[in-house]
Amino acid sequence: MRETIAAATMPAPHEPVRVREFAPPDPQSGGAILRTLYSEVCGTDVHLHEGRLAGVPYPLIPGHVSVGILSDIRGTILDIEGSLFREGDVVTFLDVHETCNACYQCLVAKQSTRCPHRRVYGITYGAEDGLLGGWSEAIWMKPGVKIVRMPADLPPETFIGGGCGLMTALHAVDRGDIRLGQSVAVLGVGPVGQSAIALAALSGAGEIIAIGAPASRLDFATRMGATAVVGLDVPPQERTTQVRALTGGRGVDLVIEAAGAPEAVSQALDLVRDGGRVVVCGQYTDHGATEINPHSQINRKHVEIRGCWGSDFSHFHRAVDIAARHSNRIPWAEMATRRFDLAHAGDALEAVATRAVLKAVIVPNS
Amino acid sequence: MRETIAAATMPAPHEPVRVREFAPPDPQSGGAILRTLYSEVCGTDVHLHEGRLAGVPYPLIPGHVSVGILSDIRGTILDIEGSLFREGDVVTFLDVHETCNACYQCLVAKQSTRCPHRRVYGITYGAEDGLLGGWSEAIWMKPGVKIVRMPADLPPETFIGGGCGLMTALHAVDRGDIRLGQSVAVLGVGPVGQSAIALAALSGAGEIIAIGAPASRLDFATRMGATAVVGLDVPPQERTTQVRALTGGRGVDLVIEAAGAPEAVSQALDLVRDGGRVVVCGQYTDHGATEINPHSQINRKHVEIRGCWGSDFSHFHRAVDIAARHSNRIPWAEMATRRFDLAHAGDALEAVATRAVLKAVIVPNS
Amino acid sequence: MRETIAAATMPAPHEPVRVREFAPPDPQSGGAILRTLYSEVCGTDVHLHEGRLAGVPYPLIPGHVSVGILSDIRGTILDIEGSLFREGDVVTFLDVHETCNACYQCLVAKQSTRCPHRRVYGITYGAEDGLLGGWSEAIWMKPGVKIVRMPADLPPETFIGGGCGLMTALHAVDRGDIRLGQSVAVLGVGPVGQSAIALAALSGAGEIIAIGAPASRLDFATRMGATAVVGLDVPPQERTTQVRALTGGRGVDLVIEAAGAPEAVSQALDLVRDGGRVVVCGQYTDHGATEINPHSQINRKHVEIRGCWGSDFSHFHRAVDIAARHSNRIPWAEMATRRFDLAHAGDALEAVATRAVLKAVIVPNS
Amino acid sequence: MRETIAAATMPAPHEPVRVREFAPPDPQSGGAILRTLYSEVCGTDVHLHEGRLAGVPYPLIPGHVSVGILSDIRGTILDIEGSLFREGDVVTFLDVHETCNACYQCLVAKQSTRCPHRRVYGITYGAEDGLLGGWSEAIWMKPGVKIVRMPADLPPETFIGGGCGLMTALHAVDRGDIRLGQSVAVLGVGPVGQSAIALAALSGAGEIIAIGAPASRLDFATRMGATAVVGLDVPPQERTTQVRALTGGRGVDLVIEAAGAPEAVSQALDLVRDGGRVVVCGQYTDHGATEINPHSQINRKHVEIRGCWGSDFSHFHRAVDIAARHSNRIPWAEMATRRFDLAHAGDALEAVATRAVLKAVIVPNS
Repeated sequence: MRETIAAATMPAPHEPVRVREFAPPDPQSGGAILRTLYSEVCGTDVHLHEGRLAGVPYPLIPGHVSVGILSDIRGTILDIEGSLFREGDVVTFLDVHETCNACYQCLVAKQSTRCPHRRVYGITYGAEDGLLGGWSEAIWMKPGVKIVRMPADLPPETFIGGGCGLMTALHAVDRGDIRLGQSVAVLGVGPVGQSAIALAALSGAGEIIAIGAPASRLDFATRMGATAVVGLDVPPQERTTQVRALTGGRGVDLVIEAAGAPEAVSQALDLVRDGGRVVVCGQYTDHGATEINPHSQINRKHVEIRGCWGSDFSHFHRAVDIAARHSNRIPWAEMATRRFDLAHAGDALEAVATRAVLKAVIVPNS
Repeated sequence: MRETIAAATMPAPHEPVRVREFAPPDPQSGGAILRTLYSEVCGTDVHLHEGRLAGVPYPLIPGHVSVGILSDIRGTILDIEGSLFREGDVVTFLDVHETCNACYQCLVAKQSTRCPHRRVYGITYGAEDGLLGGWSEAIWMKPGVKIVRMPADLPPETFIGGGCGLMTALHAVDRGDIRLGQSVAVLGVGPVGQSAIALAALSGAGEIIAIGAPASRLDFATRMGATAVVGLDVPPQERTTQVRALTGGRGVDLVIEAAGAPEAVSQALDLVRDGGRVVVCGQYTDHGATEINPHSQINRKHVEIRGCWGSDFSHFHRAVDIAARHSNRIPWAEMATRRFDLAHAGDALEAVATRAVLKAVIVPNS
Repeated sequence: MRETIAAATMPAPHEPVRVREFAPPDPQSGGAILRTLYSEVCGTDVHLHEGRLAGVPYPLIPGHVSVGILSDIRGTILDIEGSLFREGDVVTFLDVHETCNACYQCLVAKQSTRCPHRRVYGITYGAEDGLLGGWSEAIWMKPGVKIVRMPADLPPETFIGGGCGLMTALHAVDRGDIRLGQSVAVLGVGPVGQSAIALAALSGAGEIIAIGAPASRLDFATRMGATAVVGLDVPPQERTTQVRALTGGRGVDLVIEAAGAPEAVSQALDLVRDGGRVVVCGQYTDHGATEINPHSQINRKHVEIRGCWGSDFSHFHRAVDIAARHSNRIPWAEMATRRFDLAHAGDALEAVATRAVLKAVIVPNS
Repeated sequence: MRETIAAATMPAPHEPVRVREFAPPDPQSGGAILRTLYSEVCGTDVHLHEGRLAGVPYPLIPGHVSVGILSDIRGTILDIEGSLFREGDVVTFLDVHETCNACYQCLVAKQSTRCPHRRVYGITYGAEDGLLGGWSEAIWMKPGVKIVRMPADLPPETFIGGGCGLMTALHAVDRGDIRLGQSVAVLGVGPVGQSAIALAALSGAGEIIAIGAPASRLDFATRMGATAVVGLDVPPQERTTQVRALTGGRGVDLVIEAAGAPEAVSQALDLVRDGGRVVVCGQYTDHGATEINPHSQINRKHVEIRGCWGSDFSHFHRAVDIAARHSNRIPWAEMATRRFDLAHAGDALEAVATRAVLKAVIVPNS
């Protein structure tokens, strides 16, 4: 471990990202240090920089999904199979920590994603709490953090390409209950939408219609598995017409909303067939209200709308396995081709904010 | 059979109901005549009179749920157990007819409630089609109509008190997947809401909170099984506060929306706990749009919203059985205490339209 | 239509198949004639020849899944989308007919596969009932038979290669509720097992372990999508050891039993992980009882065992669509490479009975 | 706290229960002492005395479900709502402890009942581990033990009457997915069966048929909610006949097996209707194998068999709430009328073993 650790920090909303030096963490018993290989820059980081999330303890070190090399293990750390982690292992870890396993949400509702005690690396831990974000040469693995080994057949570049959007998309696809051959529309072709398309294809969906912009992302969606694309230049009503034409006049069996704009939820209800399902996972931050017609869009259609919040360890663990198994078939690695060192983390953030890239990657030890 | 059959008809929207004489039907092979004991006047009939439903072939004989005595059976008619119906049997029948069992909705989506070929007694059959509504001395049981025997322990008065609201409520409660002890809020205390309250209580729900007006209906809701009531004079935000106070601060596990006002859907999303369920069955006709916030009301709450359209034979058949089993415990019979002869069918309609009664009953052969 | 129609018949159990001449059918209104291109010979036909099925009205014309060319359409026949069938269309049809849509099984339990009124082409219709089996130059499409158009991108040879095993496998895979990345063991590598392997792979399963014999079928299973195979020469306890070694020591998430031997059900319970699922679809005929330990194999394991009987129109319809979409990727066409004319139908049966082939195809008009 | 604590211990299988004196526990930070009001004697204790469970560290202090008064709280202990426990509170606690929340079972399969790290008060903790069983004047509440407040409207006598059988039954009834009006057969009328009957009745089941012995327990079953009873003196085949006669000839929608005899699983498969569900929760210990016919009892019946192992905190928490709500209606209190002091714990055990009582209660501080 070096004498000091450099990390890129957000001092406060809208202020420039800047690199600071920190004392190396002292991993307590059951803890370790992660020497960061890659950390992700995603839409959440843009939200953080715009101050759109409540309860964030600025200054903070962003970066919630990262890959690195374990070092300075204190005591014994086991994976969920009971195998020992060793220094030098290439791993990732679940950003969510401190779900309490003692509250109503954890124990009765069994939805740890709503546990009020949960803390998140790079989002709800601040820089005062320690090196708990990925835009840093080193990350403190607190005791109890859930670490996952990178499989031999999963290049870290592929994993970080999928990143947090992959886990969110897996949760959404799970919640969509795709049956073999069913049709799916995915609204939004950002990182979550792209992975949702790929996972729908892997699940055996039939028609997979990507709706979004710009054209380059729709092209990429086709490579991820979309069988048809519709651009946002097509007016909303015409999008419905096109989707119906592709689905026997009925609309799709499943819509996955990964767009973020409130009106996408209303659009989703127009695109889905009677008795179909709409999964809403794109409304991560509050962009305001939208109008829906409960009679024609919900009641008479007999649809199900399923909110989908975050993801838990089961999605994270399975996502790593799925990405490893299909890393040759799905071009996740290409979703994160632009790399930035710590000094250019602000540029990375801007590239994501302006949609110049689908996703950027910080390489702290470059 | 008399030489002519009197029936109350709606000539057109907004026109007065008037009694007309019709030739007796000729039941074809597999058909029969039902001598009507009781036929219901419900909110749908008010909608029909206001011209709010599309595709209704006026003039029509209203009355979609009825009880009567079988006569003039032509050939063999069997119940679903294979038992023969006999003349003199007291029966009811599913108003929905001609679901095709040959289209995508019937055979693949398996939701016959969305079959485009379905016809409904008293709603989509017009008077030109025959005596196919319940506000009539006799009803033509077309071949294939699904007839259900009134059990010995189910007084026809109790059955007609539950009426069509009972089947809709059963479908909604089924779709609500109540677990023992879970809390339920029911929005709306009309016939569907009242039966939803009773069925939630029979399903072992814990807190059952009725929200609606006027006070007399809330009182009745308590007798149907509500453990708490909230009046519409309480402002919406305060209703949420009260419901949370009754549910450990979290909101209810399930909301059944049976109110009809579009904004009830938004209210439902405020009342439900994170990860809970909202069943929307009250938006039978189009009362316009409402605003929802997809971030705070759907995505972050991780809720499920389930549209619930109509009901099918399974609900009808089970509802008869459930009403028979619990006819002593649940005061369905009291929901329809005002009775009207054919000549006063217009008064019955007005009593329902003005909410003077929960429900009215036509007694055509009185 | 020729003056007489040749068909291969089973006069009685164990008696030689022989070709007979029949008068051409008179398709009634709503009916048609199918000029047979291909009809399948599968394990059910062997069971029929061995007299293992109850209630079969010998003599019969076997052949329950067939493809052919429509002719002699009487009146109007529509597909489930409402499109008109025309003479010359290449089609297949659901062998199950006359499910009543009026009994408890059809209307309340909603499992038409258990309707007591259902009749099956080539199985429960006898030769006395008409040309109602596929081993015939022509098949009578009775009014109401559910006909499905062969898509342009689905060669009839590929469809008949999948045949009835494909629908059964789709039902079983549906009932298995595979989540992305989950592990599956398929017991049995006959036609149902092979299609179950392919459909599990299309559903995004992770490890797919085929267990069966002989080695050539295990090789083919690998081409269908199996990631590992275990032969029946491996003792049962050692099979469990191997499956656990492939699944982190836990057993598979899902077992699909498509083997037919009663003891396969007990084996399945050893192979599945705690909390996993076992779908039993291979026990089509009665091969006797088997021993299970309810404590260690069911209760403590917290497993679900799901019987899976037959398939209905939804599986049939979707199977055609799925086969069309993946006909390039899955070698269904190779499952039925041996073709026989009517005169050699007995040889076809023997080839299947002796497992010389996975499946045989009758080409009646060759 | 007294200077020594008396507790009844099982020195080893088959050896007489004897009272020993122990040093008072030192509750660590987050721990407390429970002064025992009541502790249960159930069938599991009989199994423990017969040495039927693996991995039990004799000598042990039995008693896994208990009620008592909190004392000696060290630090802060919160309930799942975040409310502080105080000395003097009347509480119970989940016997299962140390589920790890870090293994595959806890985090991916989400079935903490199969966590290999779980320990159980009165069963897998031995007397060497501390005062960790209920047949003791005081019980050590280890840090992290999940404590539940006894509601004001739930007499401790009613709760202990339901006891561990109530939680198991709630899990089983949950897993049975009862729809309003569905018919249920419960095999076994011991404590689990009796509570299953009550919970099925509270869930709105229609016919509830109790099958077991002796007649006095069948009488009690009627008071718990059974609508019909069948004694074990009736031969198995005749039981099926009687159950079918009560269910339209079809068999019940749901069977809950709570009998323990392996052949009860085969009987359950005869009693269930086609497409119905069988929950197996009675096979807690290994009583050997049984024969089933996979063709006629599973595959052709299209049934689901659901193993149901133990229960988790959600069942425990909800069971307390349900018992409180219905303590006037369901005679749980009468299930445990025979009370014993520590010195007579052996007699209590024998009374349960010989089925002289449904359940016995130890009153350690009497």
